[in-house]
Amino acid sequence: MNIQVTPQAATEQPHEPNVELPLADARKAVAAEHGRIPTGPRAGGVKVYVAGELFPDIRVPFREVAVHPSANEPPVTMYDSSGPYTDPTVTIDIKKGLPRVKSSWQLDRGDIAPVLNPREVKPEDNGHASGKHLAPRFDVSNHQVFKGVEGRPVTQYEYAQAGIITPEMEYVAIRENLRREQNAPCIRDGEDFGASIPDFVTPEFVRQEIARGRAIIPHNINHPEVEPMIIGRNFLVKINANIGNSAVLSSVDDEVDKLVWATRWGADNVMDLSTGRNIHNIRDWIIRNSSVPIGTVPIYQALEKVNGIAEDLTWEVFRDTLIEQAEQGVDYFTIHAGVRLPFVPMTAKRVTGIVSRGGSIMAKWCLAHHKESFLYEHFEDICDIMRAYDVSFSLGDGLRPGSIADANDEAQFAELRTLGELTKIAWAKGCQVMIEGPGHVPMHKIKANMDEQLKHCHEAPFYTLGPLTTDIAPGYDHITSAIGAAMIGWFGTAMLCYVTPKEHLGLPDRQDVKDGVITYKIAAHAADLAKGHPAARMHDDALSRARFEFRWEDQFNLGLDPETARKYHDETLPKEAHKTAHFCSMCGPKFCSMKISQDIRDAARGQNDAGGSLAAQDAEAGMAEMSAKFRAGGQIYLTADKDPVSAT
Amino acid sequence: MNIQVTPQAATEQPHEPNVELPLADARKAVAAEHGRIPTGPRAGGVKVYVAGELFPDIRVPFREVAVHPSANEPPVTMYDSSGPYTDPTVTIDIKKGLPRVKSSWQLDRGDIAPVLNPREVKPEDNGHASGKHLAPRFDVSNHQVFKGVEGRPVTQYEYAQAGIITPEMEYVAIRENLRREQNAPCIRDGEDFGASIPDFVTPEFVRQEIARGRAIIPHNINHPEVEPMIIGRNFLVKINANIGNSAVLSSVDDEVDKLVWATRWGADNVMDLSTGRNIHNIRDWIIRNSSVPIGTVPIYQALEKVNGIAEDLTWEVFRDTLIEQAEQGVDYFTIHAGVRLPFVPMTAKRVTGIVSRGGSIMAKWCLAHHKESFLYEHFEDICDIMRAYDVSFSLGDGLRPGSIADANDEAQFAELRTLGELTKIAWAKGCQVMIEGPGHVPMHKIKANMDEQLKHCHEAPFYTLGPLTTDIAPGYDHITSAIGAAMIGWFGTAMLCYVTPKEHLGLPDRQDVKDGVITYKIAAHAADLAKGHPAARMHDDALSRARFEFRWEDQFNLGLDPETARKYHDETLPKEAHKTAHFCSMCGPKFCSMKISQDIRDAARGQNDAGGSLAAQDAEAGMAEMSAKFRAGGQIYLTADKDPVSAT
Repeated sequence: MNIQVTPQAATEQPHEPNVELPLADARKAVAAEHGRIPTGPRAGGVKVYVAGELFPDIRVPFREVAVHPSANEPPVTMYDSSGPYTDPTVTIDIKKGLPRVKSSWQLDRGDIAPVLNPREVKPEDNGHASGKHLAPRFDVSNHQVFKGVEGRPVTQYEYAQAGIITPEMEYVAIRENLRREQNAPCIRDGEDFGASIPDFVTPEFVRQEIARGRAIIPHNINHPEVEPMIIGRNFLVKINANIGNSAVLSSVDDEVDKLVWATRWGADNVMDLSTGRNIHNIRDWIIRNSSVPIGTVPIYQALEKVNGIAEDLTWEVFRDTLIEQAEQGVDYFTIHAGVRLPFVPMTAKRVTGIVSRGGSIMAKWCLAHHKESFLYEHFEDICDIMRAYDVSFSLGDGLRPGSIADANDEAQFAELRTLGELTKIAWAKGCQVMIEGPGHVPMHKIKANMDEQLKHCHEAPFYTLGPLTTDIAPGYDHITSAIGAAMIGWFGTAMLCYVTPKEHLGLPDRQDVKDGVITYKIAAHAADLAKGHPAARMHDDALSRARFEFRWEDQFNLGLDPETARKYHDETLPKEAHKTAHFCSMCGPKFCSMKISQDIRDAARGQNDAGGSLAAQDAEAGMAEMSAKFRAGGQIYLTADKDPVSAT
Repeated sequence: MNIQVTPQAATEQPHEPNVELPLADARKAVAAEHGRIPTGPRAGGVKVYVAGELFPDIRVPFREVAVHPSANEPPVTMYDSSGPYTDPTVTIDIKKGLPRVKSSWQLDRGDIAPVLNPREVKPEDNGHASGKHLAPRFDVSNHQVFKGVEGRPVTQYEYAQAGIITPEMEYVAIRENLRREQNAPCIRDGEDFGASIPDFVTPEFVRQEIARGRAIIPHNINHPEVEPMIIGRNFLVKINANIGNSAVLSSVDDEVDKLVWATRWGADNVMDLSTGRNIHNIRDWIIRNSSVPIGTVPIYQALEKVNGIAEDLTWEVFRDTLIEQAEQGVDYFTIHAGVRLPFVPMTAKRVTGIVSRGGSIMAKWCLAHHKESFLYEHFEDICDIMRAYDVSFSLGDGLRPGSIADANDEAQFAELRTLGELTKIAWAKGCQVMIEGPGHVPMHKIKANMDEQLKHCHEAPFYTLGPLTTDIAPGYDHITSAIGAAMIGWFGTAMLCYVTPKEHLGLPDRQDVKDGVITYKIAAHAADLAKGHPAARMHDDALSRARFEFRWEDQFNLGLDPETARKYHDETLPKEAHKTAHFCSMCGPKFCSMKISQDIRDAARGQNDAGGSLAAQDAEAGMAEMSAKFRAGGQIYLTADKDPVSAT
């Protein structure tokens, strides 16, 4: 166990004399790749903040990428999930944790109050680890535990239902608009399958969506370090990255590093799926250093407390674990309450049985006791606990398919319907809810998953793992699943849980986490584009214009991974001059199609442009003459049908 | 220029003492990664051949992967595009080229005859390279040039129309069935959007599909080294890999190496997109050493012959280039005859203009001369030349969109309709035809591409580049495009042209080629699965069973890339014993959901199994009792609706 907590490590860049890169920003980022907690701005962009109007102390972060002055274009504003780590004005010290974003208004209004006797850490919380095996505790003396006051609203759902716009709601409204103006023209070109994406997101729209249960802001009152974000079908598609140690591998510093690394590249949420010992202490380090919502699967820790014997699980142990984690500040819990006793036999003939850890634990418990799941039986009690801290539900799909063969089967959909019933109960209790989905699904069965979810779960946000569209490529399941993720995101899934190249094979390392995050940013953005989200296209268009105009630096900086794009370019054409050359390495100077296209455009402009070359003017004049002739004949100026799907 | 042509390099493995790998096969493959022409069997499988029935001298290759005896399952047969390079009994000598697969039956029957005065190589064919700048010539003294005899059929289309089943047709029929028995049960679970995929492919079915123009066997009579393959909507989806040097980079040995490397991992076709000097000599090396069809874009070489000045292109130079390449043995030509003069102005307002090299060359020619394209004007002459060698058309999409913003626009669809007109002309001339497609298309506009192509191009096979579903991820366009490729393959595209991570940034190296090929094998297979191709699912199911039963070695070997899967696994759990362990590194021994599922299955079996544990029997008895109760109540044994799309 080796924790990087020296102030130097956290606030300064390690010196890497062998790394030569053109930009200071890129150098910092790459240096970060070599270990330690990655801090400093991302290449090519600067961090900017937008203040709230209703709540002026809100500061919503964005990454702004300026393009070359020759383009005469405004900078591009990008969603920024990276937190204070990329703000050069913030001093990072992971021993102290992040600054608190959340205002004290809930406290001022008497909606929440400090818990006078918070739960003490028990030896079993860390698997009885002791001595050198015990991970150091995060110093929580500064972490006061809060709870909702009886009779007062505490969850975002309750505020929304009561017609109250919270600071969190304004925060996410600003965040979703990416600094677009409310009255600016926007491109609405897409097929949204019945979603209701507005041209511009207002705080009131956010409130309405949360009140209808169609969106959630996962945000435990005990996690004030969070920069609020929203998950819902009518907002930008989000992605989740899983981290966590296991009984076999990993340690505290690795997990904090992966957390920061994942959010640096764009993870909107992180789930801590740790098992084994030290689970409590590691979680403190993660939550106190996370600016994104943290999710967990409490049954994992509950099982550790009963020494891994599923049959020994009890409601009491589980309840204690919920309170433990809620007080720490976990923002959402995966609860596998849909794995009911009668559904278990439906999995017996599957090719891959039950592949969800939580699902299999509960199935074993049900079988061993001949009883209905205690999660199902105590669901209202669970709601009461979670509501008191505004921990959101992520209703787990414990019976999701683990192979193409098992997709969309009886067990899976029986559970989904149960999750729909539970959603109504949770809402009635005032809780925020999202629904987990598969898994492994061939392309032709993906849409049915979304349709069934919308039908049975009352439009609560869907949160899927992939799905993987084939089983034949271990080592490449980030790709097999990105295909399914992009599609189900398009159909309406609100958050996509990433899959890394190590899926099915091992625990992801740093590179795997980055590959998984970038791959899922692609899937989420492809989905936003296809849905016709009005904030999506401007990013693609800005990059495409940079590409067409050979603004190489802009093309790198506007991409999801500037460092990698630059590296690939430089492998073929390393010279600095080539970054302004009007050709690229694929064609060379003579063959460049982009260059020829520019000639064509120049020619087309020639007629109206005194500066046009004679040849271009000739060409244009000839074109015009021929054009007139063709039009008269009515044959050659074909007008292609408009794309029936497109609204343009 | 450094060509690896020593017999040692070609036929023996370079010694790599520092590489330690568990299997001899894997060692060979990885050694191959370090350079030289990669030979030797792929990890985990053996090469097998199936003889023809109509034509007994046909030997159709497959890769057979045996699974662990405990599984009690037959070996899995996989499509094998790797050619003789993976056959340990074949001696590879790239100076001599590959053995000839094709029988002499066309010659025996008088359908083809040697060309008495084949075209001589001219200095301009290699860009006037000389001395040390001239790439060595392949010794073609053994390559006799053939041509169709006047009045006799020569193309597969003509034979098919005449009701004749050729050896090529039987070859591909055997190949498509993957050693399934004609009367074996098959899984037909998919949505094929009106395709007509049979349960079992017969030579007669192949003939019918070719006669209808719905499929092609690209196969120049001067490329007898080819192992025939078929491209059509009712067959397995194929993939193409692009290689080729440019004016900036690359050399002969790199290109032959990339060819063999690409086919080793599964490329079904390879396009040689070389530009610059030595283009003729490099092509000889590629064709004589290729067991897959080779495509080119002849306008690239024609432009070299006029020193890169598009305006100086003439029909005569182009015609000469077609004959040059047809005699060498190129199997298909991309011909951009759909870039017509009146369509060029439609591109002027695009964000990214014309991005096809061939398209932009022709557009520039049209503008400069104020004339209709000579490719369009001479289309029938082109057909006559190509027919005489059975060179297939790949009708180029010179006006394909180069950005999300330009997708499905007027220019693109105007060209597509023209390609449909040209298809009919080519068929009337006896030629085989496929149609190229985009490009950059957001998900919601992909289906319209397939629909328009089917409508206007009379079901000629569609061959698309990606499409990329977003423009924001330079460095990851294999992934942005795999999403679109999988979808359009599902909708009916017959062949997918790969995109590598270097797209838009530089020329692909070895690792990029492999990444591109594996990514596109995933897309093609996901498409086959979703279409319900009866040969697709058995591969996924075999791998899923291996996964569920912790047969790690089988899981590696059945995957698309056994070496990478093994490496990823070993990074977490390197010990040999862990390859038989009933858990994996993600959960560790106590948490394993697969293991718990097996317990559940055992419990479910308990009642009928004398060997079942008492606990399991108890569980089962209790389950049965509860089950009966639930059924009586009619409430809890929910039956989920069948997936409306699925046929299962």
